[in-house]
Amino acid sequence: MTPALCGHIETNIMPLDFNKLDGLIPAVVQDATSQRVLMVGFMNEVAWQKTLETGFVTFFSRTRNKLWMKGESSGHKLVVREISTDCDDDTLLIQVDALGPGVCHAGYQSCFYRKLENGQWIESEKPTYDPSTTYGTTK
Amino acid sequence: MTPALCGHIETNIMPLDFNKLDGLIPAVVQDATSQRVLMVGFMNEVAWQKTLETGFVTFFSRTRNKLWMKGESSGHKLVVREISTDCDDDTLLIQVDALGPGVCHAGYQSCFYRKLENGQWIESEKPTYDPSTTYGTTK
Repeated sequence: MTPALCGHIETNIMPLDFNKLDGLIPAVVQDATSQRVLMVGFMNEVAWQKTLETGFVTFFSRTRNKLWMKGESSGHKLVVREISTDCDDDTLLIQVDALGPGVCHAGYQSCFYRKLENGQWIESEKPTYDPSTTYGTTK
Repeated sequence: MTPALCGHIETNIMPLDFNKLDGLIPAVVQDATSQRVLMVGFMNEVAWQKTLETGFVTFFSRTRNKLWMKGESSGHKLVVREISTDCDDDTLLIQVDALGPGVCHAGYQSCFYRKLENGQWIESEKPTYDPSTTYGTTK
């Protein structure tokens, strides 16, 4: 599947405000077909540029403190189809085609697999793959 | 329209991780019917509790440094229908019924009214209301 965005893109004509969260902005990832929200990650300017250059969603991992092209190890990459920003230029909404059975490292299609029911987080769907096979871990 | 969630709810049985962003977590607001992503705001623990108690989405405004029930002045409140959290307990996805013609202070249905086209943010839809009437300002 060919990314819709690829190659060098001048980012100075589409400014984003990276100053509100220590150089990061949240990026909401939504399935371009089903409209399901799959995950939320954070980008710094380098991750944003990398996303534009490659056409694959690339975050800055806060826990690992480094760039993180989603799916680089699992193969479950996120192919960019459309990008929107919000009225304050400080958040991205990215429509994607998600490769593979799920984006969540816990084995689910979406990271939002638990719903609030009677005051508790309840798993509301079944896993779509076994993360221990994909990531070599049980989580 | 009656909020789906209302009244006191014990939050200790559904922990969220407020430590990654200085006491805040991002909350993605999605239209429960159209599945359109309407906006992203931030909640602290008090805003989260207030959202649960009232059934109306309540954020912590970073610019005004105070609690902010969305729509309190405009009437464009967000009625909570369903809440999900992600695998890391550090992000919320809230399905809502949005009261009024739009959630965006700039006059649009969604804050994400600009798309990336040929390296520029292009307004991709028409405003749905006049914010100068609602907010008494031209923005």
